Amino acid sequence: MISRRGLLTGGAATAATAAGALVRHEAERREKGRNETERRETERRALAPVEPFHGAHQAGVATAPQAHAVFLGFDLLKGTRKEAIVRLLQLLTDDAARLTQGRPALADTEPELAANPARLTITFGFGPGLFEAAGTESPVKALPAFPTDRLEKRWSGGDLLVQVCADDTVTVAHAVRMIVKDTRSFARVRWTQRGFRSANRRNLMGQIEGTVNATDLGRAVWIGAGPLRGGTTMVLRRIRMNLETWDAADRVAREFTIGRRLGNGAPLTGSAETDAADYARKNRLGFPVISEFAHIRRAHVADPALRLLRRPYNYDEGLSAEGESDSGLLFASFQADVAEQFVPVQRMLAEGDLLNEWITAIGSAVFAVPPGCPPGGWIGEELLG
Amino acid sequence: MISRRGLLTGGAATAATAAGALVRHEAERREKGRNETERRETERRALAPVEPFHGAHQAGVATAPQAHAVFLGFDLLKGTRKEAIVRLLQLLTDDAARLTQGRPALADTEPELAANPARLTITFGFGPGLFEAAGTESPVKALPAFPTDRLEKRWSGGDLLVQVCADDTVTVAHAVRMIVKDTRSFARVRWTQRGFRSANRRNLMGQIEGTVNATDLGRAVWIGAGPLRGGTTMVLRRIRMNLETWDAADRVAREFTIGRRLGNGAPLTGSAETDAADYARKNRLGFPVISEFAHIRRAHVADPALRLLRRPYNYDEGLSAEGESDSGLLFASFQADVAEQFVPVQRMLAEGDLLNEWITAIGSAVFAVPPGCPPGGWIGEELLG
Ligand code: HEM
Ligand code: HEM
Repeated sequence: MISRRGLLTGGAATAATAAGALVRHEAERREKGRNETERRETERRALAPVEPFHGAHQAGVATAPQAHAVFLGFDLLKGTRKEAIVRLLQLLTDDAARLTQGRPALADTEPELAANPARLTITFGFGPGLFEAAGTESPVKALPAFPTDRLEKRWSGGDLLVQVCADDTVTVAHAVRMIVKDTRSFARVRWTQRGFRSANRRNLMGQIEGTVNATDLGRAVWIGAGPLRGGTTMVLRRIRMNLETWDAADRVAREFTIGRRLGNGAPLTGSAETDAADYARKNRLGFPVISEFAHIRRAHVADPALRLLRRPYNYDEGLSAEGESDSGLLFASFQADVAEQFVPVQRMLAEGDLLNEWITAIGSAVFAVPPGCPPGGWIGEELLG
Repeated sequence: MISRRGLLTGGAATAATAAGALVRHEAERREKGRNETERRETERRALAPVEPFHGAHQAGVATAPQAHAVFLGFDLLKGTRKEAIVRLLQLLTDDAARLTQGRPALADTEPELAANPARLTITFGFGPGLFEAAGTESPVKALPAFPTDRLEKRWSGGDLLVQVCADDTVTVAHAVRMIVKDTRSFARVRWTQRGFRSANRRNLMGQIEGTVNATDLGRAVWIGAGPLRGGTTMVLRRIRMNLETWDAADRVAREFTIGRRLGNGAPLTGSAETDAADYARKNRLGFPVISEFAHIRRAHVADPALRLLRRPYNYDEGLSAEGESDSGLLFASFQADVAEQFVPVQRMLAEGDLLNEWITAIGSAVFAVPPGCPPGGWIGEELLG
C-alpha cells in the first residue's frame, strides 16, 4: 500500500482518502494488461542469453568472463552455527538458480529487473571462517605472507564469497541487492569489490590480458576427489596499479617488463598474440630476449595440469582531488590446489617480477568453491549436508 | 627507460647493466612487428563505432545514450584567469577530438586504450564560476532552492563539467584519466560521478525510463541566438533512491506513484509503452486514473518546445556493512532555457510528486554547454575567444 506519508507530501491530502478504493479498482482493470505483459516477458526471456545454473560445477568459473562483476565478501554474524549456515546456503542457492535463469528471486522486490539475465552467474566460495563456524575442517587456509604485500584488512579475508557477474550493470546491481537482503540475518558485508572488463581485453595499464590460461580444466581447476570433488579453490587479490609512475615508463620498458608487446600482445620472441613465448632465445648480447624478471616468464607454468585459470577484472574507484587514480586489478584465479599452483607462482612474482615496481597487493582472500548442484540441491551440500 | 629501482627489485641486479643495450637492440627488431600491428589497429578502428566530434553541436547531448558515463566536476585553481582557461579548453578540445575518434591524446600514456572508442563522447559544460574567473557574464546561474532538496556540497556545483560516455568501461576510464591529467595545472577534481544504463532501459527502481522525451531539439534543446547559439544548458542532479522503503511498497502503489505500469511502461490509461497518457480519464469513483500526484503527470510538459531532454544514468556506490545500498539516479537534462524549462518541472515535482517519498536530491549543478566546434576550433571559442 502506498503510505499516507507519501500521499500527504506537498499538499496531496485530498488524494489520500480515495487511494484505497482507487487502488483496488485499478488492480482489477489491470489484470487484462498483465497477461499481455507476461506473454512478452516470456518471449524476451527466450531471447536473453542465459548461463546454466545446475550442473557438476558452479558457473562463473569456466564461464567466458562477463563484462561486469561484483565480488561480495561476508562475515558470518557471531554465533552463526552449521544449521543457520545451511539455511543461508539453501536460500542463496535458490536465489541464484532463479536469477541466473531470468526469474525473480522468491521475495524479489524488483521482479522486472530479473527478466534480463545477461549471462548472469552467481558463484559461491567458502572461507576458512565458514568451515570453522560449521565445525568442519577447512580445505583452504589463508595464503602465506609475501614480502611485496601491503594488505589492508578492509579488502582481505571473509567467511563467504559471492561472485556476481553479468553483461549488464543493472542486472548485477539487482542480483547483488537480492543476495545481500537474504544474507542479512546471517552475515554482514565485509567488502564489496566492483570490476569490469573491456571487450578488447585490455587492462588499465593498456596490456592485453588472458593470452595464456589453464585449458586442461579437468586437471588444473576441478578437484578430482574428496568432499570438494567437482569444486575448486579461488584466490582473490586486490592489486593496486600505480598508473602515475607507470605513465613515466616508456614503451620499451613496459614491453620488457611484461615480456610481451603492447600493440598486439605477442611475446617479445614472436609476432602474434598466440605465438608461444621462446624463453630460451637470446639476443646478440647473450641475454634472454624475454628477461629473467619479465612477468610472463616468472609466472609461466610449463605443466598444463598446474596452470591457474585467471579470471581477473579491472577496478577503478575514481580520483582524488589531485587527480590520482585509485585503480588496478581484481586478480581472481581458480585452481585445484592453492599450495601447489597459486603459491609457487606468486612466490616467483614476489621475488623478482619487474612489474612489482608498479603494482601492490592490498587485498587477499582464499575460498573453497564447492561443486555445482542438481535441481533441488544446494551449494555446499557435500561439505555441510 | 626502465628504472634502476625496478630492475633491482628482488635481486634483479644482474640484468640492470645490460638493460640499456638490450633495449636499443630490441627497438630495431620490433620495427617490423610494429608495422603489422599498425595495419591491424587501422582495420580495427574502421570497425569500431565512432561518434563524430566536430559539428554545430557538441556530441553527448543528442547522442543515443551510451552504457557508461563519468561526470567530472572541476574547480578552477585560485587565480586562474581567462588566458589560462582558454589554454585549458584548447587542450581538452584536442584530447576530445582525438580520443572520440579512436586516436591517442597528444601525451597519451596508454595509446592502445584509445583504439577502442566504443561511441565515446566527451562533452563540456561551464559553470557560473568559470565565467566569473574569465571576467564574462554567466549565461547560467545556480538553481533556486527546492523544499525537497537535501544538497551536499561534495556533489554540487563546479566550474567545469566534463561528461565522458562510452559503451566500454575501459574506454571511459582511459578518457577520464587523460582529461584529468591535462586539467591538473588548471583545476582540481571537485567530484566524480559514475553512472550506467541497462540495455533494457530500466532504472534501479525497476521502471522503464526515457519513454517521453524532447524530440523537437531545434526548439527544446539548442539555443537559437546569442553567444550560446548552437549550445544548450545542462542540469545534473544526484538523486538518491531509498530502495529499502521502496521495497516495502507494493506493485499497485508503485505504478500509481509513477502513473505507468512496471511490466511494460505503459501509462495507466493505455496498454503499450508509447501510448499517450490520457490525463483526463477518470475511474468509476470520479478520480483521475493517473493521479494528480503521479510523477509523469506532474512532470508532463504539453508544449514540445519546452520539454527537457533527459539523459540520466543510474548510480550505485555499493553497500554499507548492513547491506543498505547507496544508489539512485544521476539525473541529467539538457534544455535551451533552465528557468523556462527545468525549474517549472522541478517545482511541480517538489510540490507534490508521490515519488518524493522514496527519492532525495543530494547533489545539483548547472552548466552552460557551448556549441560544437569545427576542426581547428575549440569548445567555448564563441564565449571566451
Ligand atoms: C596488476 C597485476 C597484474 C597485471 C597487470 C598482470 C598482467 C599480465 C599480462 C599482461 C600478462 C600477459 C598476457 C596473459 O597471458 O594474460 C600476464 C600473464 C600472466 N600472469 Fe599476470 N598480471 C598481474 C598479476 C598477476 C598475478 C598476481 C599472478 C599470479 C599470482 C599472475 C599470473 C600470470 C600468469 C600465470 C600469466 C601467464 C604466464 C604465461 O605466459 O604462462 N599475474 N599477466
Ligand atoms: C530518481 C528520480 C527519478 C526517477 C526514478 C524518475 C522516473 C521516471 C519514470 C519511470 C518516468 C516515466 C518514463 C519516462 O517517460 O521516462 C519519468 C518521466 C519523466 N520524468 Fe522522471 N524520474 C526521476 C526524476 C525526475 C526529475 C528530477 C525530473 C525533472 C525535474 C523528471 C522529469 C521527468 C519528465 C519530464 C518525465 C516525462 C513526463 C511525461 O510523460 O511527459 N524526473 N520519470
